[in-house]
Amino acid sequence: MNLTNHQVRLAARPTGLPDASSWEVTTELVPAPASNEFVVEVSHLSIDPAMRGWMNDVRSYIPPVEIGAVMRALALGQVTASEHPDFAVGDHVSGAFGVQEFARSDGSGVNKVDPALAPLPTYLGALGITGITAYFGLLDVGRLKEGETVVVSGAAGSVGSVAGQIAKLRGCRVIGIAGGPEKCAWTVDELTFDAAIDYKSEDVRQALRGHAPDRVDVFFDNVGGDVLDAVLTRLARGARIVISGGISQYNATQIRGPSNYLALIAARGTMTGFVVFDYLPRYQEAITELAGWLREGKLVSREHVVEGGVQAFPETLLKLFAGENIGKLVLAVS
Amino acid sequence: MNLTNHQVRLAARPTGLPDASSWEVTTELVPAPASNEFVVEVSHLSIDPAMRGWMNDVRSYIPPVEIGAVMRALALGQVTASEHPDFAVGDHVSGAFGVQEFARSDGSGVNKVDPALAPLPTYLGALGITGITAYFGLLDVGRLKEGETVVVSGAAGSVGSVAGQIAKLRGCRVIGIAGGPEKCAWTVDELTFDAAIDYKSEDVRQALRGHAPDRVDVFFDNVGGDVLDAVLTRLARGARIVISGGISQYNATQIRGPSNYLALIAARGTMTGFVVFDYLPRYQEAITELAGWLREGKLVSREHVVEGGVQAFPETLLKLFAGENIGKLVLAVS
Repeated sequence: MNLTNHQVRLAARPTGLPDASSWEVTTELVPAPASNEFVVEVSHLSIDPAMRGWMNDVRSYIPPVEIGAVMRALALGQVTASEHPDFAVGDHVSGAFGVQEFARSDGSGVNKVDPALAPLPTYLGALGITGITAYFGLLDVGRLKEGETVVVSGAAGSVGSVAGQIAKLRGCRVIGIAGGPEKCAWTVDELTFDAAIDYKSEDVRQALRGHAPDRVDVFFDNVGGDVLDAVLTRLARGARIVISGGISQYNATQIRGPSNYLALIAARGTMTGFVVFDYLPRYQEAITELAGWLREGKLVSREHVVEGGVQAFPETLLKLFAGENIGKLVLAVS
Repeated sequence: MNLTNHQVRLAARPTGLPDASSWEVTTELVPAPASNEFVVEVSHLSIDPAMRGWMNDVRSYIPPVEIGAVMRALALGQVTASEHPDFAVGDHVSGAFGVQEFARSDGSGVNKVDPALAPLPTYLGALGITGITAYFGLLDVGRLKEGETVVVSGAAGSVGSVAGQIAKLRGCRVIGIAGGPEKCAWTVDELTFDAAIDYKSEDVRQALRGHAPDRVDVFFDNVGGDVLDAVLTRLARGARIVISGGISQYNATQIRGPSNYLALIAARGTMTGFVVFDYLPRYQEAITELAGWLREGKLVSREHVVEGGVQAFPETLLKLFAGENIGKLVLAVS
C-alpha cells in the first residue's frame, strides 16, 4: 500500500487563468484515522467550473480555499482504514476529499456509492452533484412546465447535458448552445435535443429566431457573456433565466455583464441564481428519479475521464475553460 | 375656445439623447367627437423615463411610437365635447392622450379623476401609474416582508419616492440612492427614509456597508448601471431585485450590463422585470391603499410641475435624464 499522499495546494490566487504559479504539490504521509474517522484513497476527482470561484478571495456561498490549503474538490474513493462505525474498509464513497490521493474524514458530507449500480464516474456525473444541479435548477428554480421551449448553454458540458435531457423527458422543446460541431452533433444525435447552435460559428441570436420561433420560456445558463445577451433578446413572456454558472466570465479580469438585462422588463422575466447545496434535504428525490432514467436508458451520463494522478490537476482544470470536455470532466487519480 | 390643436410628433428616432431633430410640432384643428367618442383638453402631461424606450424601434411591452405619430404620453384633461354616454363635458379624466392640446378618445383606458380629492397632478403621481408601479413592484414583484432592508434607486424620483415610502409604511428599513444633497435630504427629512446615499459624491458600495450592515433584501431599481452593480455586491440571501427601470442606460448607445450579476448565485437572488399594465385588474386595490395613506398624511406625493405648453415637451423630457426633477415630473399644458 502507498504510504505517501500527494496533494495539490493553492499557492497563490490567480488573476485570469490559473497557471503553474497557482499551485504547489506537496507530499505527506498517508494519515491514520482518529476515533470516528476513516481514510479514503481517492480514485476520481470531479473537475468543476465552480473551482475557479473557490480560488478567489471573495465572499460567496462557500468560503474561499485558503492559500496553502489542499484544493477543494468533490471526489470518489474507497475506504482504506476506518475507526468510524458507519464506514468500513472497502466502502466506495463520495465527498469533498480535495485534490489529494488520500483524505481523512469524519463522514460529514460523505455518501456511500454502489459501483454495481453505475460506473463510478457516473456518481460525479448524472448521479452526483452535476445531475442534482441540473435537476433542481431546471425543475425548481426554472419551474419548468411541459411543452415549454428551453435553451441550455454549455449544452455538451456536465450540467447542461443533463439539464437538456431532463427538459426533453419533461416534454419540452430543447435547444442546446455549445462550441463546435462535435458537441452540437452529440447533443442532437445522442441526447435527442431538438436543435443545437454552435456559438463559435453561428450568430446565436439569429439562430434562435429559427429554432425558437415561439421564443424562450426557460434559459438554463452555464456560460454568461455573449450567449446570455443573445438569449435575452428572445425571451418569451414570463421567461425564467436560471443562472447555474457563467464559465465564460470566470477567468475574466473585467466581467461582462448582460447588456440586454432590461429585456427582463418587457418579458416580465426573471433571472435567478441558486446553490445546489440548499437542496441537500431533497437530494434523494433527484437521485431516485435520475437513477431511474439512467436504468431505463432514457438518460445518458457521459464522463470525460482524464488519466493522470493528482499532479495532472492543474492542466486538467484548464481543459474546462478551453471547452475540451464533452460531458462531465473527471480526473482519474489512482 | 381654442380651435387649434398643437401636437408634438416623433420626427426621427434618436441615438442617445433626443434633440430638436427628434421632434416636429404640428397644428391641426381641434377634432370633433364621433359617436361614442369625446374630446379632452389636455391640462397636464406625465413626463416619464419610459418615454425614451417608446421612441426606439424595438419589440417591447408596447409598440414603439411610429415616426410621424403624436408622441405617446399619459395625461390629465377635461372633457370639452362628448358624444359618449359615460363621459360628460367638464369631466376630469386621465388617459394616454399624447403630447397634444386636445385628444379624441373612445374612452379606452380612460379614468375619471376627482379634483376635490387630490390636486390634479397627484393623479399622475402617487394616485396614478407612478404610485401603482411602486405599489405592485415593491409588494408583488419584490414580495416585500416587514422588517426587511430595502434599497431604492432614483429615490427622489417619481416611482422611487413612493416605493421607499411604501416600504417604510410596511415596517422596513429603507435606504435611498439619489443624486445630490438636496434629493438625499428630501428622502430622509420629508419621506422619512432611514438613510440616503448620494451616488454623485459617495462610493455607493462602501456606503451600503454602513447603512445596510445586514445586507439588502429588496432592491427596487430605477437606474441600472454602476448603482445596480454596487447593490449587487451587498445582497442578502434570497434578495429580490425589482427591475422597475434603468434610466442611466436609456440614452446609452452601448448599454452597460450589471457586471456583478453572478452575485445572484451566492445570494440565491432574483432579478425580475415587470410591466405595471399587467396589474390593470388590480389597480383599484393599489389606488385605495395609496389614497388612504395620502388622506392620512402618511404618504407624500410631490410633483415637479413645469409650465410651458406642449412646445416645452422636448426640453422638459431632457430634465428627467439630467436628474433635474424631485418627485414626479409633470408638464402643465393649458
